[in-house]
Parts: sequence; structure tokens; C-alpha cells
Amino acid sequence: MTTDFAATRAMFHLPDGIIYLDGNSLGPLPRTAAARVAQVVEAEWGRMLITGWNKAGWMEQPSRVGNRIATLIGAEAGSVVMGDTLSIKVYQALAAAVEMNPSRRVILSDTGNFPSDLYMAEGLCRTLGDGYTLKTVAPEAVADHIDDTVAVTLLTEVDYRTGRKHDMAALTALAHDKGAITIWDLAHSAGALPVHLAACGADFAVGCTYKYLNSGPGGPAFIYVAPRHADRVRPALSGWLGHEAPFAFDLAYRPGGGIERMRVGTPPVLQMAALEAALDIWDAATIEDVRAACLALTDQFIAGVEAVCPTLTLATPRTHAQRGSQVSFRHAQGYAIMQAMIARGVIGDFRSPDILRFGFTPLFIGADDVARAIAILADVMQNDLWDRPEYKTRARVT
Amino acid sequence: MTTDFAATRAMFHLPDGIIYLDGNSLGPLPRTAAARVAQVVEAEWGRMLITGWNKAGWMEQPSRVGNRIATLIGAEAGSVVMGDTLSIKVYQALAAAVEMNPSRRVILSDTGNFPSDLYMAEGLCRTLGDGYTLKTVAPEAVADHIDDTVAVTLLTEVDYRTGRKHDMAALTALAHDKGAITIWDLAHSAGALPVHLAACGADFAVGCTYKYLNSGPGGPAFIYVAPRHADRVRPALSGWLGHEAPFAFDLAYRPGGGIERMRVGTPPVLQMAALEAALDIWDAATIEDVRAACLALTDQFIAGVEAVCPTLTLATPRTHAQRGSQVSFRHAQGYAIMQAMIARGVIGDFRSPDILRFGFTPLFIGADDVARAIAILADVMQNDLWDRPEYKTRARVT
Repeated sequence: MTTDFAATRAMFHLPDGIIYLDGNSLGPLPRTAAARVAQVVEAEWGRMLITGWNKAGWMEQPSRVGNRIATLIGAEAGSVVMGDTLSIKVYQALAAAVEMNPSRRVILSDTGNFPSDLYMAEGLCRTLGDGYTLKTVAPEAVADHIDDTVAVTLLTEVDYRTGRKHDMAALTALAHDKGAITIWDLAHSAGALPVHLAACGADFAVGCTYKYLNSGPGGPAFIYVAPRHADRVRPALSGWLGHEAPFAFDLAYRPGGGIERMRVGTPPVLQMAALEAALDIWDAATIEDVRAACLALTDQFIAGVEAVCPTLTLATPRTHAQRGSQVSFRHAQGYAIMQAMIARGVIGDFRSPDILRFGFTPLFIGADDVARAIAILADVMQNDLWDRPEYKTRARVT
Repeated sequence: MTTDFAATRAMFHLPDGIIYLDGNSLGPLPRTAAARVAQVVEAEWGRMLITGWNKAGWMEQPSRVGNRIATLIGAEAGSVVMGDTLSIKVYQALAAAVEMNPSRRVILSDTGNFPSDLYMAEGLCRTLGDGYTLKTVAPEAVADHIDDTVAVTLLTEVDYRTGRKHDMAALTALAHDKGAITIWDLAHSAGALPVHLAACGADFAVGCTYKYLNSGPGGPAFIYVAPRHADRVRPALSGWLGHEAPFAFDLAYRPGGGIERMRVGTPPVLQMAALEAALDIWDAATIEDVRAACLALTDQFIAGVEAVCPTLTLATPRTHAQRGSQVSFRHAQGYAIMQAMIARGVIGDFRSPDILRFGFTPLFIGADDVARAIAILADVMQNDLWDRPEYKTRARVT
């Protein structure tokens, strides 16, 4: 292992006394991000004004940053572009994919997918009309349902609740064998574990950056289109920055070359600045080292919790190949238990109906943190510390 | 007039020696925005981490800020929400509007509309299929083409090139009389001139915030849905934050109440912070005063330029009621002339094929600036200072 995780940990601002196991929901602040954002605000927006689009390189940033993300997800150079939110990118990928498979009408997904992906698919089916339907099966039944009715598979590689990981290579091969196009949502993969889009022959992928890529709240999403498709997909969200010549201001849309056509509107320059600073961390870390260290941390956490908290039921697969970067336990009092943990400085989160979710990245979490988190969880469970009214009142967001 | 424009001018960071007549493209930096963004990055993201969604009010911010914008555009409280880009908001409004008028198939727009609005409409028509078409006529011919085939009118109130302003009240009434739904793009209106959405009976409106609302590069867009429609529109971009209960993580989409359903994905918290700071300027200014002072500045500019630059042809209507907040002149060498102006500290912009565009807001531009800009333009034109090779080489963005 070549990555020095003490060094990467020092790159983050981590509040004293907090063990932050929720980087899978919102990554912590990279120390350089604050300065980078301030520089963009004051030196670029403030002094360059409109000329920042050229002089500061704002216009090219979505592709430039996309290329840096490409290296983390096994994608070809020039195949990834930033922008919008993950939900919008799902819609965009899905609209392009169904059009590439015009004789079929089924979008196949699973009940472990993040609901917004399903909602966006539902919305697209309604707009498309013409018999398009979203079919949702259990995650373990996906392979059995990929048949010659399926136009597109829309799958999130790592389940946001359980951490269960699909076999991207196998499912992509199966989908192609059955004539289906694949869309992979990498929300819980990018920056957490090695992804091999090109090697798997994936068609489309999408993801967000505010989780394991630490871009901050509301950071931009990304979209990948396999280079073999990129010049023939027809964007449904045909915005001006995806036009071949945006500043010609033509009345008719002509898609830009390759991945550029998946751009839509004006990119969020301040959020992009935070993301770009956050990506510098990857100059000091490899995704393979992150994965290896993460598996050690999660093994430690699973073994430790199971040894001392018998009423918590593991929801995450034990097999390394079948899980992502988080560990989830089920408990009927999950919400209250998580509030008790947060009150004691261990921040994870709760997902309905009964999931306690803990995310692990060695970029800023070490074995000592894991040991302390286990000890605090043991205390909470063994002494029923969660059983207090104030822990049972649900806030809107957890 | 109650607004003290010397005071509002002092609220902006304006580089020395620059006369900035491009706030209609990207507003300058409000002095408080830098501090506000830094606070959100360091004190909220940095210290609150995931709990910022509740503790710092990030989750409610799109509606809270939407309400502040509502007051500037004559909209009802609770009828505006922030998010995404203007192009996405156009798509969202259009998809909802056509569904409300199911027996008709024509989206009517004009050739003066910003191209991205037309491109998004084109993309939606293709996704809808079923005979949906975008019909684009000359701006002055719009009224004549609103007939009983038109499902939706998609019009930008102020033309991005010429500054020509549609009569929103008259066209909305005419559209309703003919059974059409109206969508108004307020990109060049919001923060520039009084808009009376509710009084006009407008159905939908959309806009961006990085122009006259000074939210910075890539600031979020907004969408307005008339309260009488808000609980029955069906979002095509049905993202999780528009769900009735996003954190229930239901598998099926149920639209949220009213305007909340027009939210899609995770809001861009850093950009929202800059916007929120920028909106504080409106505590010291009224939109009516801005309009009155702007008309004086633009009258001064038109008269001054016409007196000394006979080869420039005014592209903006002279009648106050027919123009927005910018003045445009046509010249075959427009690009080079604008480069010569920028080199001399007067920043406007150029729009193909021959438009020199100058935006005026009294929030930070005064009569002295206008006089100096006229003098510099006179010098450039009378002495052919634009006629140099380096001014004729086109950069990608102008």
C-alpha cells in the first residue's frame, strides 16, 4: 500500500471529538476547499467578472473535472462531464438509452435503488408514453429479469441502505447478451471503491460528488457515456452548453461533439471549485488502497459490533465482493439508537424503516475511530441509552 | 425615489477603472457574498457536516429564497422555488404546461427567445412524440399566432439581444383567451424591472439569478407556478426532493404540496449562499426605483451614442414600455468594437451576428459611468480604434 492515510486525514477539517461515519451522505470539508472557493469568489468572480468564463477557465471546467473523475471510475479520457444533480443526470442517461433501443419498452431497476432514480424513471416513462414502463424487482432477482423486453437496466452499484454491491461486470455482460443498455449509478461507488466502466463495457454511468468525493453540499453530478455511443446519443435535455456552438446562438439545436452534448445549462462555478479542490486528495491516494483499507475497517466494525451488540442484525453482505464502503445494521429502534450515537459524537445516519448506516473511508477514518465507535455503540445498546423520548422525535432530515 | 443608489453601489466589489455594463450576463460580486459563502463552507459544512441540512436550514433554503425572489417578480408567497439551471426549469415548466392542455400540440415561441429555451422545447417535443411541435415566429408576430392550436406560449419577456420587451399582461390575457398556457422566462427581467406575475395571471415563470440578481457564476434558477395550478401540475422531472415525503424513501413518487414538487435533486448550497447574500441588496432598493433610474441611464446612453456614433444602429426599442434594462446597437464590426471597448475598461458583450450589448442597472452604474462609456465608444468609433487584428480574433466566450 502506497497511500499514507495519516496524510490524507490531515487534509480534512474534522471537528474535535467527532467520529464521522457519514461521509457516504456528505463528505467532510477538505482543508483546501475553503481557500479555493474564496479565491474563485474574490479573485475570479470579483475581479474578472464576466471574463472569468474564459480567463479562469470556468467554461471548460465541467470537462476538465470530468476527466479527473474518469480516472477514479475506470472511464476513458473525455467520457465524463460534470453538471446538474444526480437525478437530472439519471433522466438524461435514461432518455438517451431508451432511444438507442427503440423496439423495447421496459426499464428494469430494483427495489434497492435510490428512490429518486426510480422517480425520475417514472417521470420519463410518463413523458414518453407509448407503453414505456419501469419494472422494479428485488436486487437479487435482477439477473433473472434481464430478458429481451428490457430496453435499459438502471441500477445503483451499491445499495444506499444495505451497502450490498451488484456485480457490474456480470450484469453488464448479461444485459448486453440480452440486448439491453446499461446505466450504472455510482453514487456510493465513486471515490469509495475501484470502478471499471470501460473494462466492464458499461454504456452509461452517473454519480454525485458530495459523498465520497467530498465536494460539499449540493456539489455537481457527473455523467459518463461510453465513447462508442457518445457521438450518437441524442440529448433529451438539449441545453445550450451541449450545443455544438453555444455562442453561435443558432435557433436549432445541434449536439456538441461526444460527451460535451450532455452538458445542459450554466455550470455551478462555486460548487465546481470546491469539488476541484477536493479531488486534489486523490493525488495522495489510490482508489485501490482506499478499497483495501476500507474493507479492513468494515471487517473490524462488523466483527466488533456483532461481538457486543447481539440485537443488531447485519444488513450488509459479509462477502467483500458483495459490499461497498458502508456497514448497515437493522434494529426496530434504529432511529433512536442513531440519535443516541450522534449525541455521543459518532455520526452515522438512519434510513427508513430500520437501518443504521455507517460509512467508512480510510481517507479520514482509522482503526482507532472504529474501535471507539464500537465501544460507544456497545454502551448505547447494552445500557439502553437510546431509550429516551428526545431520541425518538424525528427531524425531517436525518 | 427612496433608494440611495450610492449606498447600493457601495455594496458591490467593482474593480478599479472598470465600467461594468455586463451585469445582464453576470452580475458583479456583492461584498457580503464572499463572507457568506466562506461562513457556509467553514462554519456550516466544516463544523456541522451532515447535520447542516437541518441545523443550518439548507433543506428549506430553496423555498425560503424563492419567497424573497417572489417579492421582486410580483408572485404570491409560496409560489417560487430555487434549483437547477434555467434550461432545466424551462423543461420542467414546459412539460407540466403541455400536460395541462392535452388536446393541443403546439408550443409557440419566438426567434428572439434565448436559444436554450428553444433547444429544451425541441428536446421535450422529441421525447413527447405524438405530434408535439415547437413553432417559432418573429417576436412582433407572436400575438397573431396565438390561436386554438397553441398549447403553451414559451416567451422570454426581454429579448437577450435587442432588449425588446414583450407586453406580459396583454400576451397572457390573449393566450388565456385562446385557451393557451403561458410560460414566461424572466432571465432579463428579475431584478431589472417590475414584473407582475400574479396580476398578469401568468401560469408559469422561470428565471436565472446570476444576471440582475447577482448570485455569481452558475447561481441557481427559479421556477414559479401559479398557486391555482401548483397542486395539480405533475412534475416530469420527479426528483426525490419534490416528493411528498423525501425521507420516507418510498418506491413510488407522490408529488409534494404546491411549489415544493418542482424541486428535483439536492440543492447547491454554496451557490444558494451567494444568492442569499446578494438578495440583501434589495433591503436597500426597490424594483420600481431601479426601473426608473435605469430608464434614465439608458435614455442617456442612447441619446449620447447616437449623437456621436452615427454608424451604430440602435437595435433596442426607444419606447420605455417596450424595452428592458439593456441597450443594443448593431454594427458589422460589433465583435471588434466590443473588444476595443473592453480593452479600454468598458465591459459589455457581443452577441452574434452583429449586436453590441450594454446592460444598465443603477444598483452599481451611475450617470458618470454612462457619460464615460459614451466618450470611450465615441473615441473607438471616430478613430477606428477597433480596427486591429487582435480585436478580431474571436474567443470562445465573449
